[in-house]
Amino acid sequence: MFEFRHALNIKNCLRPFGEVNNLNNGFRQLKLVNLEKLFKPEKVAVVGASRDDGKTGHEVFENLLHGFEGKVVPVNPNAEEVDGEEALDEIPQGMDLAVVVVPGKIVPNVIDDCAEKDVEAVIVISAGFSETGKEDLEKQIVEKAEENGIALLGPNVLGLINTENSMNASFASKMPESGSISFMSQSGAFCTAILDYAKAEHIGFRHFVSLGNKAMINEVDLLQKWREDDTETILSYTEGIDNGREFIEEAKKTSEEKPIVVVKSGRTEQGGGAASSHTGSIAGSYEAYKAAFRKAGIIEAESNRELLDLGRSFNYQPLPEGGKVAIITNAGGPGVIATDEISENGLELAEFTGDTKREMRDFLPEEAKAHNPLDVIGDAGHTLYRKALESALKDEEVDAALVLLTPQANTEIKKTAKTVIKADQESDKPVFACFMGEQDVMKGKRMLEENQVPEFEDPKDAVKALKAMKKYKEFLEKEETSLDLEYDLDKAETALKDYSSYEDAEKLFEAHGFDIALTEVAETPFEGVEAAQGVGFPVVLKVDSPDIDHKTDVGGVVTGVESKQDVKDGFREIMNNVHVNSSGSEIRGIQVQEELDGLEVALGMKRDPQFGPMIMVGLGGIYIEALNDVSFGIPPFAEEEAERMIEELESSELFEGVRGEKHDLEPVKEAIVRLGDLSLEHEEIKEIDLNPAILRKGKLYISDIVLDIE
Amino acid sequence: MFEFRHALNIKNCLRPFGEVNNLNNGFRQLKLVNLEKLFKPEKVAVVGASRDDGKTGHEVFENLLHGFEGKVVPVNPNAEEVDGEEALDEIPQGMDLAVVVVPGKIVPNVIDDCAEKDVEAVIVISAGFSETGKEDLEKQIVEKAEENGIALLGPNVLGLINTENSMNASFASKMPESGSISFMSQSGAFCTAILDYAKAEHIGFRHFVSLGNKAMINEVDLLQKWREDDTETILSYTEGIDNGREFIEEAKKTSEEKPIVVVKSGRTEQGGGAASSHTGSIAGSYEAYKAAFRKAGIIEAESNRELLDLGRSFNYQPLPEGGKVAIITNAGGPGVIATDEISENGLELAEFTGDTKREMRDFLPEEAKAHNPLDVIGDAGHTLYRKALESALKDEEVDAALVLLTPQANTEIKKTAKTVIKADQESDKPVFACFMGEQDVMKGKRMLEENQVPEFEDPKDAVKALKAMKKYKEFLEKEETSLDLEYDLDKAETALKDYSSYEDAEKLFEAHGFDIALTEVAETPFEGVEAAQGVGFPVVLKVDSPDIDHKTDVGGVVTGVESKQDVKDGFREIMNNVHVNSSGSEIRGIQVQEELDGLEVALGMKRDPQFGPMIMVGLGGIYIEALNDVSFGIPPFAEEEAERMIEELESSELFEGVRGEKHDLEPVKEAIVRLGDLSLEHEEIKEIDLNPAILRKGKLYISDIVLDIE
Repeated sequence: MFEFRHALNIKNCLRPFGEVNNLNNGFRQLKLVNLEKLFKPEKVAVVGASRDDGKTGHEVFENLLHGFEGKVVPVNPNAEEVDGEEALDEIPQGMDLAVVVVPGKIVPNVIDDCAEKDVEAVIVISAGFSETGKEDLEKQIVEKAEENGIALLGPNVLGLINTENSMNASFASKMPESGSISFMSQSGAFCTAILDYAKAEHIGFRHFVSLGNKAMINEVDLLQKWREDDTETILSYTEGIDNGREFIEEAKKTSEEKPIVVVKSGRTEQGGGAASSHTGSIAGSYEAYKAAFRKAGIIEAESNRELLDLGRSFNYQPLPEGGKVAIITNAGGPGVIATDEISENGLELAEFTGDTKREMRDFLPEEAKAHNPLDVIGDAGHTLYRKALESALKDEEVDAALVLLTPQANTEIKKTAKTVIKADQESDKPVFACFMGEQDVMKGKRMLEENQVPEFEDPKDAVKALKAMKKYKEFLEKEETSLDLEYDLDKAETALKDYSSYEDAEKLFEAHGFDIALTEVAETPFEGVEAAQGVGFPVVLKVDSPDIDHKTDVGGVVTGVESKQDVKDGFREIMNNVHVNSSGSEIRGIQVQEELDGLEVALGMKRDPQFGPMIMVGLGGIYIEALNDVSFGIPPFAEEEAERMIEELESSELFEGVRGEKHDLEPVKEAIVRLGDLSLEHEEIKEIDLNPAILRKGKLYISDIVLDIE
Repeated sequence: MFEFRHALNIKNCLRPFGEVNNLNNGFRQLKLVNLEKLFKPEKVAVVGASRDDGKTGHEVFENLLHGFEGKVVPVNPNAEEVDGEEALDEIPQGMDLAVVVVPGKIVPNVIDDCAEKDVEAVIVISAGFSETGKEDLEKQIVEKAEENGIALLGPNVLGLINTENSMNASFASKMPESGSISFMSQSGAFCTAILDYAKAEHIGFRHFVSLGNKAMINEVDLLQKWREDDTETILSYTEGIDNGREFIEEAKKTSEEKPIVVVKSGRTEQGGGAASSHTGSIAGSYEAYKAAFRKAGIIEAESNRELLDLGRSFNYQPLPEGGKVAIITNAGGPGVIATDEISENGLELAEFTGDTKREMRDFLPEEAKAHNPLDVIGDAGHTLYRKALESALKDEEVDAALVLLTPQANTEIKKTAKTVIKADQESDKPVFACFMGEQDVMKGKRMLEENQVPEFEDPKDAVKALKAMKKYKEFLEKEETSLDLEYDLDKAETALKDYSSYEDAEKLFEAHGFDIALTEVAETPFEGVEAAQGVGFPVVLKVDSPDIDHKTDVGGVVTGVESKQDVKDGFREIMNNVHVNSSGSEIRGIQVQEELDGLEVALGMKRDPQFGPMIMVGLGGIYIEALNDVSFGIPPFAEEEAERMIEELESSELFEGVRGEKHDLEPVKEAIVRLGDLSLEHEEIKEIDLNPAILRKGKLYISDIVLDIE
């Protein structure tokens, strides 16, 4: 396990990860108890059960009536009976769960009634709450539920399905097959689409939960539950998370037990706007989500199709030991396509051992070559497929097999499907199939699906799934090392207390152990010359102003200052430029800084409303805006996570040292960890911009600091 | 039309695009005639027609017997009759086309027989030629066909299908529906998969051609044919093109008439290896293909699924006027997903006009908001969909509509499909649909497909198709401007004739109009000091050696040389370094070069075996290898193509000028065009490496030239 607390020998210990936002533990315990009644009630009241076919109140009641193992009671003061069951005027005593389908404004009364009758769980299907601007009404029902220890799902949901007890407490007309995948979605309609795919492709679910407005029960509650129950794979459609740091903590704990696959929508500004207009939720920055997913080991799917593809891959197959894939195909072209995808996705074509090749030559037709991709030739029957697949799967150089099939004249589609199923059952390596086409191959596809061999429309999709599984395996096997760093927090706090100058900023960063480029601030050209002689030529001159964040843009920087005269000229130039381009700015003086030749790196921090401080690293100087080659992380950081942040950059190679230097990412990695700790420690700092910092000879020198302090 | 010939006022006119590789025009004319008999024969002989069910010779004959409007004759000396038709011992007189299904080694005899009987077209389905190493056998049949003016398709093909005359001259069991898409594929098995999808999804084809080993008829022939016939959309699966420059020329002419969509496999080194092992073809570098596709306006699909998605989008729908999309959905979540995809793919969410919004408010339910994405709410019936779609389509701010549907309790799937079909038929804007799910929505999906509304599994795929259509529209509307450049080719040829020194290289590039950094070559430190004084401090010192390509790697470069003493020290340092790191290299001297401060740009040229010279542009210096941010183009270049090459770079912004300079890509663009012309003119130069060139104050200075001359 990752120990977040750094080994500090200073007075103030930095905040460990879990402490933020985790103030209501007592209440959470209460909800955990109640989730039991939400998922496994014995008696359910449908409040607003309707006689009218087509009405939601009717659909829900009918769904519960059929199949559910417990007792279901319709509550409707305007009806005598619903679907042959006597309708009650109010909720009777002894109900475990109430499913509420009445108009939004009546829901508070229903919650009161639930409280009175000791109902412990409520699903509010009704809409008309925060998603239509009625935040007060939503707040009201949550408060009532909280006061009475009621677990509340919704409002504005499709409902909840549990295949364990055959309970369809939703207005979805379909009940999925039973399985060990659990699914949650912020969008109810997304649920119906997923149910429709799942039904056709025989994908089984354990729990199926529409989260809606998430007024009380949210992703964190379900992750806690599913981590501990028999769920094996967790899928989620998410637009926005409110309690980001708590989510990361729960998700990470869960990912260490079972895979979580998420489709995140609202990634773009426009998408986020669309999301907030339909659920009232704030999507937040996608960069923050990507950082959160990395930290928590969450696997991201790009679409609904991929969510299911990844879901069944993880659910049906063991994780591959490595990334070496064997392709068995009856067609060269698709073999080439799959090979391209394998190369492009960081996997490898397995190289068969000599033994395997010899064995293959015995059963392959003359035209076929015993190498990977293994083309068993267009007229291959199922027996040849079987021999090839068995031979490949037992090869120690093979971590996974991908079987491709195109429907040619003599192709035995169903028999080959059977063969693949059998080989999969007998092997402890993952087996994937791609039967290309739609009409002829459908029977084979369906057989594979029913027998839990992940089956894809395109080799590309199979390879993506394998890649995700390999990445998850790496997450499970990751190491997390705490760097042993020291901070002088007294000095840092002093620097911040009366923060007014660049020197204060330098002190803060020195206190946190950063290397700082030698800098003196001069107020006159004469002082400047003295400072330059002290620092040593060549120097850089930079305007020092609390009002100017982007010094270069206003002509506030002069580089290559080589002599006394240069210093004087530079002073004049900067003062003129600033006067013209940024008149009225307060000028504290001119920074005279040693000119360091090295790689320009940018570091920064901003605070995300959902996830707290976000640390940024990237190429600095003129490159940062043009290339936008930056990555983000959420502190605190293990050494390995900081390393991954750098490795995710296109330019990561440069960070290992350029022009003959080699220093293994160490200085930048350490700076990332330090900046993370600094940001967690000093919450009054809203934004930090260190650009450029200069990487040279194994050290990273901070040469500019812009702080935004509350 | 693009006029490739530059306006030159010098003696030697640079080579226009089409002249390369285009030596066999007479023969091509001949083939064009014969393609007529290949696609529209009246009498067909099947040589090798077999009585045995399951044999290829049987399948082919049976396929031709059923449906084909012409006469079919079985040729098989060992049979009395095939499928009730009298079998002949040899090809009779008067046949237009022979389909050959005999073992490979007998095929030359069959071609002889064809020649004797005046057969004008032959499809050689038989395998066992170059794909199994039998290049001689393949050469033999091509020579025989050429001598006798026979058009030869194959060998090693699935065959050819023409729905115009219901001719299935292949061993594919399926005949696609008729339509105006024509398809060619290097892989026969890929054809069978596409046929299977197409059948299920009602995608109609005009011609369906398996190209196999392409011994004679290749992509160029079919492009010529399809450009002139009633084909409206061309699809292709391609592993490798042999005659690259001719292909570009034909494809570009064709793209200007109708869209060409290509799946290119063998993109990676491993994929290319797999390709060459199954068809004997050489895939070549993917960079060259990407450059060729850009030049020719070819749309690239990433997978078989996307090939069909793009195929039917182009075939069924008009091109959008612009990129502004209206989304109509009965579900918020999918609307968010689609919005994200639109933003991420360079399209826009349309902003409805005030009139449209007012109209929408009249028919929308209270909870729905009249903005894009337009969420008509979960219980929307088909009438509401119709009003919303009509309203959006007639809005002048809308270029295309995307209809999303999830199968909710009251969703009218079939009626909504009908509504979408009607709205599409009445509008001249493209309409796309995505009915999410598989089982419940299938009927709606199939209706959409039958009525030519492109229908996608995922909003992502629909957006990709729209993006491709917008890009193609831009290709059709592109301008192609010839830069008016001058070259002194006499000087260039003199420089090349006795090429021996850096000065010669400088002369070559000067003759081609490049700006060159001021450089003198010195042999002694004393000469170096003089040179530096001539050039002006600060200078850079670089070793000048024909044996050293990467000067920095051997310590052969010293920068920041400010004084006489620095020059002397630098000389010593370089000589020592080179002695240690590259002993035995011939040293011509030391280049003393003005030190230019600016953006480091890299330019280069290498020759691709299929496509000829490829010009590269990218970020230079230390960044080129780490970022690999380069793009390639195939000369000659219009100004706009050179511009696109720069714009495709991640770092393109930097090329417009950094630190306050603004010069609109001009200097780099011009250098690309010049380098392209230089490479076409001087074929003896195999490779060129200009790295770095320095972009400063609106000029690009070549500061290093490495040439590889034959």
